[in-house]
Amino acid sequence: MSPFSHTKTLFHLPRNVVYLDGNSLGPMPLAARQHVATMMRNEWGEQIIKGWNDAGWMSLSTQIGDRIAPLIGAEPGQVIMGDTLSIKVHQALAAALALNPGRKVILSDCGNFPSDLYIAQGLIKTLDREHTLKTVAPEDVSHYIDDQVAVLMLTEVDYRTGRKHDMKALTATAHAHGVITLWDLAHSVGALPVNLAGSNVDFAVGCTYKYLNGGPGAPAFIYVCPRYVNKIHPTLSGWLGHAAPFDFELDYRAARGIERLRVGTPPVIALKCLEPALDIWDLVTIEQVRKQSIALCELFIREVEARCPGLTLNSPRNAQERGSQVSFCFEEGYGVIQAMAERGVIGDFRAPDNMRFGFAPLYIDEHDVMTAATHLEEVISNRLWDQPKYKTRATVT
Amino acid sequence: MSPFSHTKTLFHLPRNVVYLDGNSLGPMPLAARQHVATMMRNEWGEQIIKGWNDAGWMSLSTQIGDRIAPLIGAEPGQVIMGDTLSIKVHQALAAALALNPGRKVILSDCGNFPSDLYIAQGLIKTLDREHTLKTVAPEDVSHYIDDQVAVLMLTEVDYRTGRKHDMKALTATAHAHGVITLWDLAHSVGALPVNLAGSNVDFAVGCTYKYLNGGPGAPAFIYVCPRYVNKIHPTLSGWLGHAAPFDFELDYRAARGIERLRVGTPPVIALKCLEPALDIWDLVTIEQVRKQSIALCELFIREVEARCPGLTLNSPRNAQERGSQVSFCFEEGYGVIQAMAERGVIGDFRAPDNMRFGFAPLYIDEHDVMTAATHLEEVISNRLWDQPKYKTRATVT
Repeated sequence: MSPFSHTKTLFHLPRNVVYLDGNSLGPMPLAARQHVATMMRNEWGEQIIKGWNDAGWMSLSTQIGDRIAPLIGAEPGQVIMGDTLSIKVHQALAAALALNPGRKVILSDCGNFPSDLYIAQGLIKTLDREHTLKTVAPEDVSHYIDDQVAVLMLTEVDYRTGRKHDMKALTATAHAHGVITLWDLAHSVGALPVNLAGSNVDFAVGCTYKYLNGGPGAPAFIYVCPRYVNKIHPTLSGWLGHAAPFDFELDYRAARGIERLRVGTPPVIALKCLEPALDIWDLVTIEQVRKQSIALCELFIREVEARCPGLTLNSPRNAQERGSQVSFCFEEGYGVIQAMAERGVIGDFRAPDNMRFGFAPLYIDEHDVMTAATHLEEVISNRLWDQPKYKTRATVT
Repeated sequence: MSPFSHTKTLFHLPRNVVYLDGNSLGPMPLAARQHVATMMRNEWGEQIIKGWNDAGWMSLSTQIGDRIAPLIGAEPGQVIMGDTLSIKVHQALAAALALNPGRKVILSDCGNFPSDLYIAQGLIKTLDREHTLKTVAPEDVSHYIDDQVAVLMLTEVDYRTGRKHDMKALTATAHAHGVITLWDLAHSVGALPVNLAGSNVDFAVGCTYKYLNGGPGAPAFIYVCPRYVNKIHPTLSGWLGHAAPFDFELDYRAARGIERLRVGTPPVIALKCLEPALDIWDLVTIEQVRKQSIALCELFIREVEARCPGLTLNSPRNAQERGSQVSFCFEEGYGVIQAMAERGVIGDFRAPDNMRFGFAPLYIDEHDVMTAATHLEEVISNRLWDQPKYKTRATVT
């Protein structure tokens, strides 16, 4: 029997809602609320400061990292939690550039999430303004990898289209030219198998509030390959990345291993929130999830294309080249997404005309896909998007 | 009637415990657990992605900042939450250095919290290695402020001794020499009145898990004075500091005002946790807190010096030169703190010989002070610290 009929029961899903936005923010695991409440009473409430030792708060960043490691092809001790994805991009990029000091080009693509590009731009200004960020079309990346490039910085799965890079091939090409790789796994972790070790990746970062269901603003993670981890000098050299933080020395000495990527005091309650989320991941394999994700995406594409001929698929048709989301272009996509939401089907919209639908097998099944396709057909064929109330765009979608 | 007999009832305080470590981690407001549980069910659970707009998550970082502003002499719109204190130090220091490009010296003191110094060291390595960090004795700081100094970076209240700098005078001296100031308020906010505007401070940062009782690893805050806030180029230029984050442009454009100090997706649950904590602060004035804090500290010093002649006061005797903690030196201080903890009095220890006791009037009263002094006397006079079990030091104290 499929494990997913069980995992679906482990989430708080609003009544009469088909939630296809887990690629933006995953729903709440039912156990999360009680887990956090219990932690707050028994640990913060009763132990207060002693919680750092007695409740293991100080090691939570590595404990949680060790649980994410198998989802991304890493070993225990190679992944650590903290801060936000943007901060982790900064840490990884700064470290990677310093490992390749003779080169001044950061290569990325225009399908990267903008914050990654912004962080690169900010770092360049801080560094020396001699570095440049070269942003090419996703399909052209491999042609621009050359001996001038210091770091190849890519998001594996495009946040708008779901288009998936070939991580292993691009990393190999990069290495053949002496380029260090930094992969953002925001739309990969929990969506498809990632094999950082097998792909020989140098640095990777990701977030936990999408497919991992860690809650709004849940902490990010960072991975550094063993050959580099003890060579890097953290630019964000906070006290918890110090070799002996509680010796309160005046000079920074980096901790051994991934611990040096810690910065400040860890966000304990947010880290605790990830425990019940990861408990659900213990019930399935990422290969099972991937297989089911492809089945759901294929079903949705087939149904939508049959029902809504005016929509254009904006994701790769080949499932192997796609993450766990499906996008369709439609000029009035914003109104469509709003009208769908009123009918209980939650997708989202990314300008200028991109409608995104994420399929997370842990809580989305074939029946949900059919419901979504039916509503989409009704909205499109009855022009339900064409209402004044859908013309004003909210700040956040 | 004193407001503090009421505020004390609003905290979860373990039975038979006198908690004198709120200068490290404040206790849990009783309302926090239900507040977070309700938010998790009604907002994350029921609204999921819509929570960003409908539940106001996206503006939480400024909303909470606006509630902290009056505690530190800032105006609404000048303080924003996010990340950790170390990250905020990095942001402020990088921005301050860039405002003073001809100068290469960061002046600090050896009483600064080490993480601030580590962050400065990491930033210098990243920048150009031409900058230097000059760390002098706290009492000598004013003598080292000269026209070579780019930034004066100090923590107002010393984390070990409670020694308090004269923020207004040092800032004035700094400005007279063209030096930009960065004040860390970790041990000030909620401990004593801070007047950033009145002191003409340029940058300030602080944390919320000490006297503000926001929970373990609660988010930090940053303040930038109006004359600089729109001139700085954030080095950590994450998407939420962009002028239009949901336009997903490829190039960074800084938001107006303090919003540009945002980096990544805000830690919503942790920010929510601060709301009930700040509700308690609405019941008192910081002036009331300061007056009572001084009374409690004076009482403790008087009682301990009368009962334990072998201990040496390691805090300024003049209350005006002290924060809201009292420290005593004792060679066997580590064992003393452990023995005290077994008897229900929680202080903490900072190497080599410093015993810290924090007095937070919101939940500590005169009776607690007398209880603590009594136990300290018993531990010292009966040499209760002299037991093998107290010889092994835990990693975190």
